[in-house]
Amino acid sequence: MDRTGLLIILSSPSGAGKSTLARRLIDWDPTLSFSVSATTRSPRPGEVDGQHYHFIARDDFARMAGSGDMLEHAEVFGNLYGTPRAPVEAAMQAGRDTLFDVDWQGGQQIRASVLGPHVVSIFILPPSLPELERRLISRGQDAPEVIAGRMAKSRDEISHWAEYDYVLVNDDLEASFQRLIAILTAERLRRERQKSLGGFVKSLMEGGESA
Amino acid sequence: MDRTGLLIILSSPSGAGKSTLARRLIDWDPTLSFSVSATTRSPRPGEVDGQHYHFIARDDFARMAGSGDMLEHAEVFGNLYGTPRAPVEAAMQAGRDTLFDVDWQGGQQIRASVLGPHVVSIFILPPSLPELERRLISRGQDAPEVIAGRMAKSRDEISHWAEYDYVLVNDDLEASFQRLIAILTAERLRRERQKSLGGFVKSLMEGGESA
Repeated sequence: MDRTGLLIILSSPSGAGKSTLARRLIDWDPTLSFSVSATTRSPRPGEVDGQHYHFIARDDFARMAGSGDMLEHAEVFGNLYGTPRAPVEAAMQAGRDTLFDVDWQGGQQIRASVLGPHVVSIFILPPSLPELERRLISRGQDAPEVIAGRMAKSRDEISHWAEYDYVLVNDDLEASFQRLIAILTAERLRRERQKSLGGFVKSLMEGGESA
Repeated sequence: MDRTGLLIILSSPSGAGKSTLARRLIDWDPTLSFSVSATTRSPRPGEVDGQHYHFIARDDFARMAGSGDMLEHAEVFGNLYGTPRAPVEAAMQAGRDTLFDVDWQGGQQIRASVLGPHVVSIFILPPSLPELERRLISRGQDAPEVIAGRMAKSRDEISHWAEYDYVLVNDDLEASFQRLIAILTAERLRRERQKSLGGFVKSLMEGGESA
């Protein structure tokens, strides 16, 4: 069915399962394109340019943001993060949905942009904060003070849950995944998203008369 | 999760598969309650009072409609049809969703009622009108002139497709059923439907501090 691609925003405190769920969604529907953010921070070990982030210089970032080539951008812990606009618009016009892994600031800016009517936003809550901390510690990626910083940011992130269209409590990864699929399936069936319905109904009425 | 029940409106021209889909939905989730309409028309062979319809006298119908005990009502082919309000409100307060099999007039009136914000409306389109006519004929229930009347009503019904939140083309019953389940699942996850989320987030934040 002919339609304009959706902008699907997934937000959550880090450690709530968002990245795993995003990866599974893309496995489920390979036409989904994942929005790769641009950032001025340095790559962490194992991070690949163009896959995990577009790692770009501060000057280049500022130039893109200044000329409207970032759909949204924000400064977090002294580094700039943003969403390049061009790939999102290309996907929309091709009828493909784009998945965004952004924090509440990014979500607010994308919602407030001209592409706002195409946004479907989903917030993923952890079942508990101690559970979230355990997950961050067990990753083994970060020093204790970094984890403390992430937990503070998590609280800040969670405080924005009420700005989202849908809210999931991720106490079971498989159940959460099925719920995400249901949300995508339903949103694609919303009348105003199905651009070719008017034409279909017209041909339905005409075809019925000639039969 | 604590929530107010939804009013799920299914509309379609007769023969598009709506009744089969409604029955399968209730098998899938037995907490769904089906809104049994009241009517002043005579029962057809096999129709059971209180199950297919509440068959009531014209005087009683008029009295209920007059005192606001009908959520909606309309006259079709000289008979009155309406939705008794009390069972719907009881289900909502118990957090159970109610399924409505109503035509576009019923859909409009329920949407315009005080319960409008709780409505999720779904229109089911047939893949073609000749196919619809074949289905009506193969039922063997109606005389040719009744079928002609139904086809005229079908065209009228279809012309209101754009008033619905969701639109499905029922070219495959199993696929349509899965889509209906996705819509219900997603609508129940909408943030504003989940009344206990605020309390959950509050306990999440407090629980995290004491741990």
